[in-house]
Amino acid sequence: MKKRLSPTQKAYLAGFLDGDGSIYVRLKPNATYKYGFQVAPYIVLFQSQKDRKNFEKVCSLIALGHIRERKDGILEYIISRHDAITLFLEIVRPYALLKKKQIELMTKILTEKAKVKNAKQFASLMRLVNSFRELNYSKKRKIHTLTP
Amino acid sequence: MKKRLSPTQKAYLAGFLDGDGSIYVRLKPNATYKYGFQVAPYIVLFQSQKDRKNFEKVCSLIALGHIRERKDGILEYIISRHDAITLFLEIVRPYALLKKKQIELMTKILTEKAKVKNAKQFASLMRLVNSFRELNYSKKRKIHTLTP
Repeated sequence: MKKRLSPTQKAYLAGFLDGDGSIYVRLKPNATYKYGFQVAPYIVLFQSQKDRKNFEKVCSLIALGHIRERKDGILEYIISRHDAITLFLEIVRPYALLKKKQIELMTKILTEKAKVKNAKQFASLMRLVNSFRELNYSKKRKIHTLTP
Repeated sequence: MKKRLSPTQKAYLAGFLDGDGSIYVRLKPNATYKYGFQVAPYIVLFQSQKDRKNFEKVCSLIALGHIRERKDGILEYIISRHDAITLFLEIVRPYALLKKKQIELMTKILTEKAKVKNAKQFASLMRLVNSFRELNYSKKRKIHTLTP
């Protein structure tokens, strides 16, 4: 992230995210993690590859993720580091109109995750992650719970 | 349009348009028009209907068009009046990063259209409209020319 984005640059990014972006978090089963799941949050911006050069300008304002080209030619700018997501959300929060709830919930999840000390707290975190589903209305996502 | 949008509101709308919006113009064959074609410009913002309430907030900032619900549930906010398009483009132009060329060409087309006085000038306008195709890379759009 550039050290100083102007208020209009921040608002532009909020508009871009609201229009085109996706905020989501999922639990990936992974036996190498202490509680059996990895908390995997993502922010993704999309654009068709025909406008790659200009899309790179937008991404370079953010500079917290990487561009990936999908097989269907869509470009994705993916932010997945937890600290990068927290920083990006701080920047767009004051200006976002559509994704306010997702921004708040994601921020809460990342804050809670940093505090987890035991299985009970992790189970509570999992419920928060699962509640993200309702915001995004995805029917495909699996709900994971800790086996008691 | 609200009389005074703040710079960050304008930048937000530019980001929304860049991320999610579409700017296009086409020539509709129409015998009731002097030169046989209607110049039909559009600006469209899209959103899934699950977020209708918040999308209406974005649209109410603009207040230059109308919301249409497609059969597939996607909401479209359509600006089609020429003066409304000109005004909206003036507002977002300073902040847009991805659609700068479309904004410039559309503004030029609407300016030229207002000056058309004869068939030659209309033919020249038609060429400008057809050149929009190259910016948007649509292969479906028909190219119309005036029969000499």
